[in-house]
Amino acid sequence: MASIKDVAKLAGVSVTTVSRVLNNRGYIGNETRQKVEMAIKELDYQPNQIARALLKNQSNLIGMIVPDLSHPLFSELIHWVEAFANEKNYKLLVCNSLQESEKESNYISMLRQNRVDGIIMCSHSLEVEEYLKLSLPIVSFDRIISPSIPYVASDNYKGGELATTHLLEKNCNKILHISGPLQYDLLANRRTDAFQLTCMKKDVQFTILEGAHVKADFQSNWEFIERELANQLTKFDGVFCSNDIMAYTLYVYAIQHGIQIPEQLKIIGYDYHNFTRMLQQPRLTTVKQPLDRIGKALCSSLIDQIENEKIDDKNNIVIDVELIRGDTT
Amino acid sequence: MASIKDVAKLAGVSVTTVSRVLNNRGYIGNETRQKVEMAIKELDYQPNQIARALLKNQSNLIGMIVPDLSHPLFSELIHWVEAFANEKNYKLLVCNSLQESEKESNYISMLRQNRVDGIIMCSHSLEVEEYLKLSLPIVSFDRIISPSIPYVASDNYKGGELATTHLLEKNCNKILHISGPLQYDLLANRRTDAFQLTCMKKDVQFTILEGAHVKADFQSNWEFIERELANQLTKFDGVFCSNDIMAYTLYVYAIQHGIQIPEQLKIIGYDYHNFTRMLQQPRLTTVKQPLDRIGKALCSSLIDQIENEKIDDKNNIVIDVELIRGDTT
Repeated sequence: MASIKDVAKLAGVSVTTVSRVLNNRGYIGNETRQKVEMAIKELDYQPNQIARALLKNQSNLIGMIVPDLSHPLFSELIHWVEAFANEKNYKLLVCNSLQESEKESNYISMLRQNRVDGIIMCSHSLEVEEYLKLSLPIVSFDRIISPSIPYVASDNYKGGELATTHLLEKNCNKILHISGPLQYDLLANRRTDAFQLTCMKKDVQFTILEGAHVKADFQSNWEFIERELANQLTKFDGVFCSNDIMAYTLYVYAIQHGIQIPEQLKIIGYDYHNFTRMLQQPRLTTVKQPLDRIGKALCSSLIDQIENEKIDDKNNIVIDVELIRGDTT
Repeated sequence: MASIKDVAKLAGVSVTTVSRVLNNRGYIGNETRQKVEMAIKELDYQPNQIARALLKNQSNLIGMIVPDLSHPLFSELIHWVEAFANEKNYKLLVCNSLQESEKESNYISMLRQNRVDGIIMCSHSLEVEEYLKLSLPIVSFDRIISPSIPYVASDNYKGGELATTHLLEKNCNKILHISGPLQYDLLANRRTDAFQLTCMKKDVQFTILEGAHVKADFQSNWEFIERELANQLTKFDGVFCSNDIMAYTLYVYAIQHGIQIPEQLKIIGYDYHNFTRMLQQPRLTTVKQPLDRIGKALCSSLIDQIENEKIDDKNNIVIDVELIRGDTT
């Protein structure tokens, strides 16, 4: 690979002059600039960003830790974060924690050693203290880590309220909520709070079942439903699932067990990611988290922290949600 | 962030001694080693991998360029590549080309400037010459770029043969194939070759329709089917689609137009990624590309090139495929 010295030699100028042209610094005559530019082109010279990173103490790398790269929610989020990061001249290092705290911890250490400029944290298996030790810009998705670490989330409370109110308006009065894992302090759990409060206000009978499972795939959900709900499903006339894959699994389970959707049982999900949008049978009723806006907000919140060292007040960003009416309610 | 000097100061030794401990080089007494290790722990010192990369001329970064990060095929592939790269102590920089050659070209330049050790190339909008100019280890997915650049692919020919033979065994005799974009020289097009040859050998009437579309989502596929197939679908009794999302779209279209699946029309897809595995209505008949094995092969082929500079023969890797019997044939 050609070095800056090779460029200087071919152009017949000093290394300092080449560096000035590259950085657009100091006075350079037109003729000299042209000679240097031609030499750069001829040698296909690529400036060494690693050396620059060391010099400027900035790598333009962003680390992003997610629980599962192949999950439609996170792959879509990565898609949008990458797009916005690229616009701002940042590159994305992705890490898959698989919800194992040791893996998550190793990744954080690796990201620090590689001098990423900041971390987008979508995993949550690690203790809060571990994050607080980091002296790096961080933004978290869907989790309050500490007042010094801003978060981006959809309006989970409103989402829970929308979903529950929708079931009530459809005349459900024995309602079940299948929640996410409640042992983590996730903002997604506000969906559960909203569910509970909305039912209580309207004096409607409700049940909450914790859907604590690591793998959010069809098979694990199916086993969960068989284990926890098998003979009880007919007791309910409406279910609010905290994610679309659970809602879809429940739909398939109900149909196979002779329960008519939506006549006997109404089902509403949460997310509206790629999988849900492609799904046509059924078109799920669900709450849409706008992943494009969430990805952009994660990115801009982090870059803001990176580029403006002296931010006193780091704002959390809460993004509006929307009811999507499908065939399951 | 603590520097190597801080560690040396706290341990009461020289920077050279700390460096020896870190790199496990030269003789260090046990007591000294312990003092250094305690100082490292106390200061939470993280060695600077960027400086190391510059010194060793190796960054342990792998670049991966895909056409669409949120597509289930590529998000699953990234998932597996990341897992294997992590085992081998490499980190993954992901780039989304969106099938735009200018974006792909910018990414390649960016990856070179960041001194990635190699590139996994899953996008294909760029001309072959552009890749040949790179003096970097490369491995490509599903595409022959040049004899000097190895590829990893599923056995596309066998996959096409399996799919077509399966339709013939189910007594189809007016068969349609919806291919991928044929303007690119992709190995996936061997599915089309195998389709054609298998039909010819058996003397069965066949039609090939090029499904050249950038966005592999439900909506674009639907518009394609309406435009190209609307009044002709009943002419066929079997369709081999070159990807599962097309197969699913066609299934939904057929059902909505009163065509019974599989009685009147048999449909087989290709991929068996996350989306297909979760889909229960219908369970698609399809050809499985094992994305875990493909991801591992892409990773190990690239790392092999990175770590053994003098490989004369770079082997292409072709991974076996499997027929998945579902409800659509």
